[in-house]
Amino acid sequence: MQETQIVAKLRRLAEAGHRDRSVIKGIGDDCAILRPRASEDLVFTTDFVLEGRHFALETHSAAEIGHKALARSLSDLAAMGAQPVFCLVSLAVPATLKAGWIDSFYKGLLALAAKHETTLAGGDLARFDKVVADVICCGRVPRGKALVRHGAKPGDNLYVTGELGASAHGLATKRGAAWRRHRRPEPRIAQGMALRKLGVSAAMDLSDGLSLDLRRLCLESKSGAMLDTDLPMAPGATEDEALHGGEDYELLFTASPKTRVPATLDGLRVTRIGTIIKTGRPGTIRLRGRPLPVMGFDHFA
Amino acid sequence: MQETQIVAKLRRLAEAGHRDRSVIKGIGDDCAILRPRASEDLVFTTDFVLEGRHFALETHSAAEIGHKALARSLSDLAAMGAQPVFCLVSLAVPATLKAGWIDSFYKGLLALAAKHETTLAGGDLARFDKVVADVICCGRVPRGKALVRHGAKPGDNLYVTGELGASAHGLATKRGAAWRRHRRPEPRIAQGMALRKLGVSAAMDLSDGLSLDLRRLCLESKSGAMLDTDLPMAPGATEDEALHGGEDYELLFTASPKTRVPATLDGLRVTRIGTIIKTGRPGTIRLRGRPLPVMGFDHFA
Repeated sequence: MQETQIVAKLRRLAEAGHRDRSVIKGIGDDCAILRPRASEDLVFTTDFVLEGRHFALETHSAAEIGHKALARSLSDLAAMGAQPVFCLVSLAVPATLKAGWIDSFYKGLLALAAKHETTLAGGDLARFDKVVADVICCGRVPRGKALVRHGAKPGDNLYVTGELGASAHGLATKRGAAWRRHRRPEPRIAQGMALRKLGVSAAMDLSDGLSLDLRRLCLESKSGAMLDTDLPMAPGATEDEALHGGEDYELLFTASPKTRVPATLDGLRVTRIGTIIKTGRPGTIRLRGRPLPVMGFDHFA
Repeated sequence: MQETQIVAKLRRLAEAGHRDRSVIKGIGDDCAILRPRASEDLVFTTDFVLEGRHFALETHSAAEIGHKALARSLSDLAAMGAQPVFCLVSLAVPATLKAGWIDSFYKGLLALAAKHETTLAGGDLARFDKVVADVICCGRVPRGKALVRHGAKPGDNLYVTGELGASAHGLATKRGAAWRRHRRPEPRIAQGMALRKLGVSAAMDLSDGLSLDLRRLCLESKSGAMLDTDLPMAPGATEDEALHGGEDYELLFTASPKTRVPATLDGLRVTRIGTIIKTGRPGTIRLRGRPLPVMGFDHFA
């Protein structure tokens, strides 16, 4: 099949999927065209999914890789409290993949896109010796209302959605619910939008592990944090997996003590895990009275 | 150097570069934030630059690869008649690259970004065994005014900017101006904006070769084309290189016979090369009375 035919097929798949009315031109031109609404801000993110880094062809189906590629970017929209609008998908694949692999990748991606009302508006397609995907997502928030990392204040409570360590535990054990969770992460879109309406002070998603991501939130907020209670652990996960394991894609957020944070958001448990503290060394995290070593996933460590 | 330090350095580089006032949050959060203007449409594109496909580390400097990565995406904005707003850059690099390579890549990219007033607003950074870049660009056009591929009508004249075949000729000979041109393509931003103001009927950029790209424009416009005069050839280039060679990044456009198209746009020559024709087989291109074979670059052929 030639590129032109593949693109024509993807275009039919995309046009059969969710179509946001502000996307006035999707696949088929040099660019996608968006007509923004006057009262909104737009947020943008892009994330790689690389063979041998984020998945292996032996253990992840094409549909799971497509799902994960979009889930990583949607999770960043969730962290901003944004509603998804559209995605662009750059995909490079080896000639050795079996027929139908590209189709299955897009079907996995589009199933998640449909769930979160995201329009596939374009992208790029190329041959390469490994599978590489890069997914760009655009979301909308009411003007001035995006959740940011830098808003946490000393005295704010620190929370996470769901449970921690499932993804790392799944990757280590390759079985059960944790392994499924690793292969099909769920972006917390509904929870992010609920947090935005609640008016929390800061938020981010947990992609590289709590210890590293919380450090980043604290650095942006020029503060520190104290973890002062038990973490909500995924069944079977160790404390190390919960503290340092990547790819949980839960939301980490802070809220003023005056904000009434519910026990669940859209059916998902919310747990208070600590407090934002003033510190002479921004980024310091304390656990049981001692500084927590930063051990999350760093591509360049 | 750890990822956090690299990102901190890129953030300083980006903040020292062009900053579009509508980009209200750049590098440093889960997403970039854009506050769109009420009277504008936004256009979006993404393009891969892959080691061994679009460049070789032996022949292209890091700065040239950064330049080319952004140039490919900016060229798509030019094709829509758009003014650049921001870019997001996903970059994966092997651990074996020499120190300073990432810096040089971004410096090459940011020099072109400065020239075209494009803000570096975010991206992703990862380790991989080959160099992979994916650059997303966002541009603005007055509402409803984006140039599209589907507007060409039978009887319209067909034009190109600049000269054809330079990039393919440069790649074949690896010397002189053509080789420099291959390594440092120039997105035709000023020309695209001028064409939009002129009210041309259709436009696209020439990335995969005239024969393939013109076919795409004709397919979208449900028409054909007749090439009825000499092509503007780059010095030394063969007719095959001008007809089928990729990566010239010139603009291909059509205009009603009533539109007065100037001989130059922002100092760059414009040449009429043919006519849009009615045909029972959309996408047919005729040259000297015979159908032109489609031989441009197809990743999946």
